[in-house]
Formats: sequence, structure tokens, C-alpha cells
Amino acid sequence: MTTETKILLPDAEMPDAWLNVASLVRDEFPLPRDGKTKQTLTVQALASRYSEECARIEMLDGRYGTDLYIPIPGEVMDEYRKYRATPLFRAKGLEKHLGYGGRIWYKREDFNPTGSHKPNTALPQAWYGKMQGLRGLVTDTGAGQWGAAMAWACRNVGLECTVFMTRNSYQSKPYRRYLMELANGVVFSSPSEMTEQGRALLAEDPDHQGSLGIGMGEALEMVMKQKGLRLALGCMSYYAALHQTVVGLELRKQMDVLGIRPDVLVACVGGGTNLFGFMAAYLQEKLLDPGAVGPEMVAAESANVPSLTQGEYRYDYADAFGLTPQVMMYTLGHQFLPPKIHSGGLRYHGKSPILSLMVKKGLVRGVAVEQERAFEVGGLFYECEGVLPAPESAHAIAATIDMAKQAKEEGKNKDIVFCLSGTGYLDLKGYADMYGLKP
Amino acid sequence: MTTETKILLPDAEMPDAWLNVASLVRDEFPLPRDGKTKQTLTVQALASRYSEECARIEMLDGRYGTDLYIPIPGEVMDEYRKYRATPLFRAKGLEKHLGYGGRIWYKREDFNPTGSHKPNTALPQAWYGKMQGLRGLVTDTGAGQWGAAMAWACRNVGLECTVFMTRNSYQSKPYRRYLMELANGVVFSSPSEMTEQGRALLAEDPDHQGSLGIGMGEALEMVMKQKGLRLALGCMSYYAALHQTVVGLELRKQMDVLGIRPDVLVACVGGGTNLFGFMAAYLQEKLLDPGAVGPEMVAAESANVPSLTQGEYRYDYADAFGLTPQVMMYTLGHQFLPPKIHSGGLRYHGKSPILSLMVKKGLVRGVAVEQERAFEVGGLFYECEGVLPAPESAHAIAATIDMAKQAKEEGKNKDIVFCLSGTGYLDLKGYADMYGLKP
Repeated sequence: MTTETKILLPDAEMPDAWLNVASLVRDEFPLPRDGKTKQTLTVQALASRYSEECARIEMLDGRYGTDLYIPIPGEVMDEYRKYRATPLFRAKGLEKHLGYGGRIWYKREDFNPTGSHKPNTALPQAWYGKMQGLRGLVTDTGAGQWGAAMAWACRNVGLECTVFMTRNSYQSKPYRRYLMELANGVVFSSPSEMTEQGRALLAEDPDHQGSLGIGMGEALEMVMKQKGLRLALGCMSYYAALHQTVVGLELRKQMDVLGIRPDVLVACVGGGTNLFGFMAAYLQEKLLDPGAVGPEMVAAESANVPSLTQGEYRYDYADAFGLTPQVMMYTLGHQFLPPKIHSGGLRYHGKSPILSLMVKKGLVRGVAVEQERAFEVGGLFYECEGVLPAPESAHAIAATIDMAKQAKEEGKNKDIVFCLSGTGYLDLKGYADMYGLKP
Repeated sequence: MTTETKILLPDAEMPDAWLNVASLVRDEFPLPRDGKTKQTLTVQALASRYSEECARIEMLDGRYGTDLYIPIPGEVMDEYRKYRATPLFRAKGLEKHLGYGGRIWYKREDFNPTGSHKPNTALPQAWYGKMQGLRGLVTDTGAGQWGAAMAWACRNVGLECTVFMTRNSYQSKPYRRYLMELANGVVFSSPSEMTEQGRALLAEDPDHQGSLGIGMGEALEMVMKQKGLRLALGCMSYYAALHQTVVGLELRKQMDVLGIRPDVLVACVGGGTNLFGFMAAYLQEKLLDPGAVGPEMVAAESANVPSLTQGEYRYDYADAFGLTPQVMMYTLGHQFLPPKIHSGGLRYHGKSPILSLMVKKGLVRGVAVEQERAFEVGGLFYECEGVLPAPESAHAIAATIDMAKQAKEEGKNKDIVFCLSGTGYLDLKGYADMYGLKP
């Protein structure tokens, strides 16, 4: 049995293609449709909102409908190589604290540029935009992980980047905004005075806290009114999910190096792309051989925004205003206004369509985690491992602990792997608030 | 020529001993002395201030005076294994930006628990304290890197931790204080009302900004007045420098894996232990064979606190009040009050005695970096690599860039390696101030 506590991969072992899981479920995977006509969209129609390549991915156009592996462009690989593969760590401190006889592992996506898994899709999105000759990209962000990654990726290729940051996070997470602005990102508190939709909401309630859906709607309004801009999404889209599969492909290689078949995979879920990417290689195995014994897959969502555990699987708008296409997903309704919580990345009414399908098919199971428990567990993990997780990621750790306790009760020593999707250093104000520290 | 961009080490290759460089220069290395009597101290006298084991190391007692390798206690190795070895990264983005044909590498001490190199010595210090049956440790901190690491390490073994944080940093770096408090550290803004010395300074100037020397003096006053407490130092002491040698031992192994002899080593220098530890393995080579061609070693200090480039090599107090023993070092005088700068970790009047000796012997060369340049370079590095350095570490990057430009002018493709001693995520307020971002 391996005693190794950290696994990297040599550059030569890095995945050089994304894993196009949708090609395996093409017939079952409902495509985006127009909300009014209910007609499936065309690539052309979507390309007025997204970059062309993203629109093609989203509609499973051409090779995206057929090929299981999509080669990663050389320029994107060069950027990935700056920080990938990310190491896989063993959480021996947490194991000891729990008195757990099995092993707990975690994938260090917090080590990435800007401190989260988000650059994995921000980099190719920025590159597509540049190839297409766009002026810039516009996006929304909750906790700020996505905005920071997108601003950095745009700066990298010389595109403008505008970010609508939900007011809730704009106020509570200034450090993430600084990160965006250091990369020349232009950041607005959302709802903002920059759009009609934003002004309307502020007129109703000047202290409106915003939501990811509202930010997305504002971003889309700007894209539709100005030339040379397109929307960039860090979650919800299939393209973002596809790009994140580098995480899962690395993970499988790392587990293979260790000679381990994981028993349980856990990730937090806001939009769902971090989880989908992290689990993609094992989802592939289950889809190719439904009878095979694969790892149990757990999606930890916020109990305040329980779209997987309490939502419906149906077509709904991705934004709050009904400006985006409708996508098939687990949703609480696009006008659901999530409560003001610190895990801004989890404040979203729906879950990524590809993840939703995996849940619908019974491959992934949702569990809900209370915010207070997440912060408590985040602090515990910091004590045990010296690693402060983003509050979002702390939801995954809470579910991991539950799975370890359950395995212990059953007398089983399982290998449990979770995705540490982001650092908590940029969320210390949230921790300070929750722990009652003096400002 | 290797194209690998990231190097880890298997657990089995981790150094299991510290490199006791002082044993190689025992006759030349002046020991701490009493400031009044000018007599070399005894272990017993020092042990009233430091933990016993730290006092022994400081006085080169027993094996510390003779043995080149000091085995790392098993319990400390277990903690090191949670995060070490740290990876060595190639900075291809920076190379490209500079049009540099050689290679630039950096050691990721920012990946450590609490985000800096400091746990490398905080962990053994906490463990010594626990073995001795102490109640707690008291310390000072500038930027907060040391305080965060010490609080976390104390929590780890169940010791109390009190931190005097210089007011300058207490106000500008709340996130680092939160990190300390999350680990149950008790943090005072220094100068504080908790000590006689602190009260005297506040009486003179209620807005006194403090300094590392003042914080150290306050910590020592508390240790001398209460039972079961000892002083823990993150820099200046030889024990802290000794513990940091794990960094350099790993570095040499990683360079050996790559088949590279580094041409230039660069680190920032506040107290000097980060630099000393990072360069230790190559210092050893130079001391053992003075004629050998070894890497050029550059110490990047703050131009506002230029103890290496403008200070004197003489005995001086480590703290501002003359409560500590005197040590032989490059110093600006223990009453030097550094200007209010953002790189709190560099605001110290002297440099670690062992590093000072290496500078005196001509093995390490000091260069001064202006604060504005450091922040500018920090932002550049963030753009190029997606990694935001602590302002302290940004001084090392500035010196690295100078060395690369010089090599380029000379038509040489040198391998330059610097130590990324800490993350800048906890310093975003400093970056925001320097870049004029809206609070």
C-alpha cells in the first residue's frame, strides 16, 4: 500500500485533450433552446452571445458531437503547463483527526493562478476570443473566483474584460476584486447602473444583493448592445465543463500512478463545472460500462441553494431575466433569489446541464451542506492540514467527512478523493465574520 | 536540455536532516553575547528566553557545534510531509516577457501552510516547546507571515500563542491576523498596552507604527514576566535559519533531478532565514571547497531598510529595547525605525548572524530594491505566471529580473533560481494601495 503523500505528473503525462463526455450521451443530452419558440438553437444564434468556438461546443457541433477527445490547442497547453498538472495531496492530518483508517486525498486546484479551478476554462475562452478577433469578453462572477480567472486570462491575450460581480460578494470579498483589477479587469457591483435590467432592480431596492443569474443577465445585456463583445461563462455552459475535464484526466493518471481505484469522489457544486471536470474520467468509465464498479460520486451543494436535492429537472433560463437560452437542468427557477451567504460561488439557481444529466442518470448524488457547517469544517481543515479552503470547497470537505464517518461505521477503509477547488485566503473576511473575529 | 516545468520530490527523497552550516564555520561564527558584560552567553542563560533546544542550537551546543546534519525529529517530519517537498516551477511566462534565453526557476514556498516559508521553523519550535512542557510561545511578527505560521504550529501541538504584530501591518494586513486568530492565536497591535515598553512608546506617540525590533522587545518582556512562556523567533536566530535548510536541500535535489547546476540564486532578505535556508546546500559546497565554481548568490533587501548594503557588521541587539542578547550582524542600529512600508517582513534593522557571516565572507551579495519597483514587479509576475507574490518575495523577483537582463546583455543563458517565499493573496490590500485601486 502506497505511503506517498503527494503526486505530481511529469509534463509528458499531462492530458493534451479534453474529455468530451457529451459525445457519449449525445442522444440523451438536451441542447439549449430558445425560451419563447422552444426550438433548439443554432450555432449561429448562440454565436451572437458566445464566441464562435464556445457556441460550437455548446451545440455539440461537428467533432464536439462525435469525438471523445478534443485536442487542447498548443497555445492553451502552453498556459496550462505554467501550473498544471496540479498535485494530488493526501490529507493525513484530517484522517488522523477523524480516526479514519482509510485514505483521504485532495486535488490542489487552489494552487492554480488566481487561486481556483477557474483558469482551466478562462484560458481557452480568452484564446478563442482572441482567435475570433473580439474586442473583449463580459462575464458575471459570484465569489469572484471566475471573475479573477477571466480577467487574468484576458490580460494574458490582450482582450478587455468586464465583470459584473454580485453585490453580496463585491462588498464581502474585496480581495478578489483587487485580483481582477490588478489584471486590468473592469468590475461593476451587480445589479449595476450600467444596464437597464440592473437599473430596474436598483430602483426597486437600492440595496439589492444581486445573484449569479442577475450578473449573467447584465453581462448579456452589455454583449447585445455593444460590438466586439461576447459573454464568457465560468459555469453552466458545456464548454466550461468540457475544459475542466483536464482535472479529472490528471486525477485518473495520478490515481493510476498510486495504483489506487478511488471509492468515493466528492466535489462542491455551484454551477457544477468544477465537479464535472474533476469526476469526468470516472463518469466516462461508468457511461462506457454501466455495470462496472466505479467510485461513488457525491455533489455537495449549499443547503441554501438546493437545486440538486430540491430542484426540478426541466428547461429553464440560465440568467435571472430570461435573456439567455433555456437549458435543461436541475433548477430552483431562474427567478429564485438565493439568500446572502458567504459561499458566493454556490449562489446559483441551477446546475450545469451536463452535470444535471449525470445526476438524472443516477451517476452523481447531491447532498446539501449548511453554511455554518462548511465554515466550521473549513477551519478544521486549516488546523489539520494548514490549508484554508474557499467556503465553496469547504462544502466538499464536509461531505468528505460524512463519507469517511460512514465508511468507518461500516468498517470499510475507503479511498476518498475530493477537489479542493479554491483557496480560502481570499475569503478571510467571510471566515472572520463567521468566526466573529474583530474586523 | 530539460523541458520539464515542474519538479516535486517523492516522499522518500525528502531531506530527513537539517544542514548545520554553522558547524563548518564554527571558529568564525560569533555567538550571542550579553550586551552589558560582552560575555558570550551560556545555554542556560539563553534558555530563560528561548526553549531549551533553541538555546542549544543558538549556542552551537553539543552536536550543533560539530555535526553537519541534524536529524529532523519524526514528529516534525510527519508535519513537513503534509506539505513538503515544495515544487520547483519554471517561470516560462516571465522568461518570454523578458526575451530571456536562459531559464528562470522558482521554489514554491508560497504553497506552504499559512502561505509562506515560515512553518518550516514554526513547526519544530512548537514541537520543542511541547516536549519541554511549556505553556505557550510568544513572538513578534511584521507582515504577519511569521505570526500566522507560529499560531498554526502552536495550535497543532496544543500550545498557547501570543503575537505582537507591528501596528503598520496590523492595520494594513487584517487577513494575516485573521489567519492567526483562526488558529486561536492572540494578537496584539505593537506597540501595545500589554507591556511597559509598549506603553512608554504609546505615551510618546499614540500612533507609533512599531517595528519588528519593538515587537520582539514586547514579546520578550512578556516572556520574562510570566511563567511557562518562551520567545519564538522566525528570523534572526540561528535555529530559525537551521530549520529553513530543508528548502535548500530540496532545491539541490530538484536541480540534480533536472541535471542543472544553477548559475544564480536569489532570495529576498528581511531577517535572512528564508534566504539562508534556500541557499544553504550551495553555501555548504562553497564553504567545503572555496575554489569551486558555485552559483552567484544575491540577497534582495528593501532599499528602505538597507542593512546589508549600508549597515555595519558588528554586535547589536536583536530587539529595539536592548532586552535580547547582542548578536554579530549587519545592522542599521537597533534603534533604527524603518519607514512605513508594505513589505512588513523586511522592516528589520539587522540581518541574521549566519547570513551576515556569509555576506562578510563574500559568498552572498546584497542588493537594494525600491518598494515601488517591488510592487510593479509583483504585478508583472502575476500577469506572466498567474502567481501573486508577497511584496517581500517581489523584491527577489526584481533582483532576478536584473540578473536575467545582465546575463542577456552578456550573451549568457544562465539558470537563475529564486525563492518565492510567500503568497501575495494576503497582501492584496497593499497591492490595492500601491496600484491606487478603489478600497
